[in-house]
Amino acid sequence: MSKEKVQIFDTTLRDGEQVPGCKLNTEQKLIIAKRLDELGVDVIEAGFPISSPGDFKSVVEISKVVKNATVCGLTRSVRKDIEVAAEAIKGAVRPRIHTGIGTSESHIKYKFKTTPEDIIERAVAAVKYAKSFVEDVEFYAEDAGRTDNEFLARVCEAVIKAGATVLNIPDTTGYCLPEEYGAKIKYLKENVTGIDRAILSCHCHNDLGLATANSIAGVINGARQIECTINGIGERAGNTSLEEVVMIMRQHPNLGIDTGINSKLLYDTSRMVSEHMGMMVQPNKAIVGANAFAHSSGIHQDGVIKNRETYEIIDPAEVGVNESSIVLTARSGRAALAYRAKKVGYELTKLQLDKVYEEFLTFADTKKEVLDQDIHQIIEISKIDIKVIA
Amino acid sequence: MSKEKVQIFDTTLRDGEQVPGCKLNTEQKLIIAKRLDELGVDVIEAGFPISSPGDFKSVVEISKVVKNATVCGLTRSVRKDIEVAAEAIKGAVRPRIHTGIGTSESHIKYKFKTTPEDIIERAVAAVKYAKSFVEDVEFYAEDAGRTDNEFLARVCEAVIKAGATVLNIPDTTGYCLPEEYGAKIKYLKENVTGIDRAILSCHCHNDLGLATANSIAGVINGARQIECTINGIGERAGNTSLEEVVMIMRQHPNLGIDTGINSKLLYDTSRMVSEHMGMMVQPNKAIVGANAFAHSSGIHQDGVIKNRETYEIIDPAEVGVNESSIVLTARSGRAALAYRAKKVGYELTKLQLDKVYEEFLTFADTKKEVLDQDIHQIIEISKIDIKVIA
Repeated sequence: MSKEKVQIFDTTLRDGEQVPGCKLNTEQKLIIAKRLDELGVDVIEAGFPISSPGDFKSVVEISKVVKNATVCGLTRSVRKDIEVAAEAIKGAVRPRIHTGIGTSESHIKYKFKTTPEDIIERAVAAVKYAKSFVEDVEFYAEDAGRTDNEFLARVCEAVIKAGATVLNIPDTTGYCLPEEYGAKIKYLKENVTGIDRAILSCHCHNDLGLATANSIAGVINGARQIECTINGIGERAGNTSLEEVVMIMRQHPNLGIDTGINSKLLYDTSRMVSEHMGMMVQPNKAIVGANAFAHSSGIHQDGVIKNRETYEIIDPAEVGVNESSIVLTARSGRAALAYRAKKVGYELTKLQLDKVYEEFLTFADTKKEVLDQDIHQIIEISKIDIKVIA
Repeated sequence: MSKEKVQIFDTTLRDGEQVPGCKLNTEQKLIIAKRLDELGVDVIEAGFPISSPGDFKSVVEISKVVKNATVCGLTRSVRKDIEVAAEAIKGAVRPRIHTGIGTSESHIKYKFKTTPEDIIERAVAAVKYAKSFVEDVEFYAEDAGRTDNEFLARVCEAVIKAGATVLNIPDTTGYCLPEEYGAKIKYLKENVTGIDRAILSCHCHNDLGLATANSIAGVINGARQIECTINGIGERAGNTSLEEVVMIMRQHPNLGIDTGINSKLLYDTSRMVSEHMGMMVQPNKAIVGANAFAHSSGIHQDGVIKNRETYEIIDPAEVGVNESSIVLTARSGRAALAYRAKKVGYELTKLQLDKVYEEFLTFADTKKEVLDQDIHQIIEISKIDIKVIA
């Protein structure tokens, strides 16, 4: 089955970077941008050029070094924003302007204090103006997640007519359930005239822990771009995690979709971004957390030793992790202890294992983790005659 | 509309604790168990009593102190496991034994090296044996996520007949998509004779970042218990996050379901578990991360000032976050510092902020957290003329 491609739009350097504690200098942004290009993302959102001279400069420099990916600059539906963004990305091989405006009742009424008709006019004017600088113009309907579908369809139709090539449907507040978000994309696919001339894009936030699921629901219903960040960083609870959506599409071939991402670079890229940004990744983070491939309970360890696929759905090597690290704790079983003892040189008989395991449990109850050197000590304490493997 | 209740089964002390680096002593487990009871969880899985003498002792002690929640002990489908678990929980007001066996082809073939018929026999024998000790017996069909639905239904039917009160359908490897997991629950609801005599339970793992979405899909399709942990800790990429599923049900009244959780204790409980376990929570963690309610970009701050609901779907107070619990550390940025300084009365210009931020970093490097009173001191050290807000 030939697979359809979903474009990966990385916004680590824009939505990811606008977070407390995340300040990067231009040099760091260039290192990350080059890596994202190697990783195979389709679009790099490099910044919000009007926001500060530093951000402008970073977008200019990123535009020069990125070889394959489209480089995108964010703007509001404001002429000055668009001019500055166009200037910042003009050195890019594939430049894109990402402009838009809030479309939900809450945004129209409280943020813009205006009417729906005025919002459509401003949206169309922004897209047309952006189009005078670049061919590739993406439009975002901010707070689309809480926007009435009928009005959203009218906005989409108008901006496609004005030349938008990509329609970003953001769940800005992270409120949608996967079924709702999927239904929204489906509604647009079925009700917007000219929808086939534009790519629908998912931009989901993780306030309720659903960003990944919502993005996948969007893709199942016809979206062909996902906006995401490395480690899921971003405003508040963050954006969709790039590594999660990429591996879901890879591990579920039945979806019939894939990306151009070189997954073997995922783990290293995660570390790189975490270190430069000073944003830690929790050990239980999917795909890239320190424990993502660590088996500690006895039942699980026994299963993995018998057959990796019993408990592991992803071969760690596929995302650039060396081997599934079997960590020994007081919850580990005999099989794990025997496995690790063998790794450090002891071949245990069943009876010996029973005795060593007893000592191991006493030892492990007082320690968080049992390391290789501890195994030598435990075996010594057990006072049994053990065959050492050469 | 009167809402149906979904039971919250907390496994922080069992699936959460069996993780590298997570070792808790009995005293710490008791502190957490008491808090879970206050939080209003319906079931506390206190441990896997056969696994070690330390774990056995913890389950005994937890059984004594928990007043409201059911206390549950895990076992394999092994008589000795069940006897030890029954002994451990016998002091509980509401004791439950959680027994089970692998039901997927991979588990049957590689882990147990046996036949499907033998698996059903062992499952039934385990439930019957557990039932001889306690009334409340939960059965887990390990790796149900990859188990053929027809066989799974046969297993469920057999264990209900044997007396199981709860059927746990774990996506052990975290492989399912929400649609698939929801469809599995629906299939069981529609095809298992006697299903109304048992509660279907979701136990999802987060290997692809979908544990929360899968649990909600399960509930939408008829499950009435969710197994989860504080901060989503657990084997590998962890389990479903308690705080996420609870707040999804709370924020989506249309689902017509709710829990008995006192959400105002969520943030404090998250920090308590994180500190005792030494398992950090990343800043972009949904609901309980340090940045979950932090607005840093100018656009967002502007929107929030005009109307909180523009960008915020949850009132932070509802999960026990007050402004000052957004923690300032050496990893915090200028925006976070300016925001907090303003809260305690200082309006900083950009230039002043630069100077204060420098002092702040020096100060923060020597302290774990920067408190409100520290801000006054830092501003004094900075020796700048600052406008104090009345």
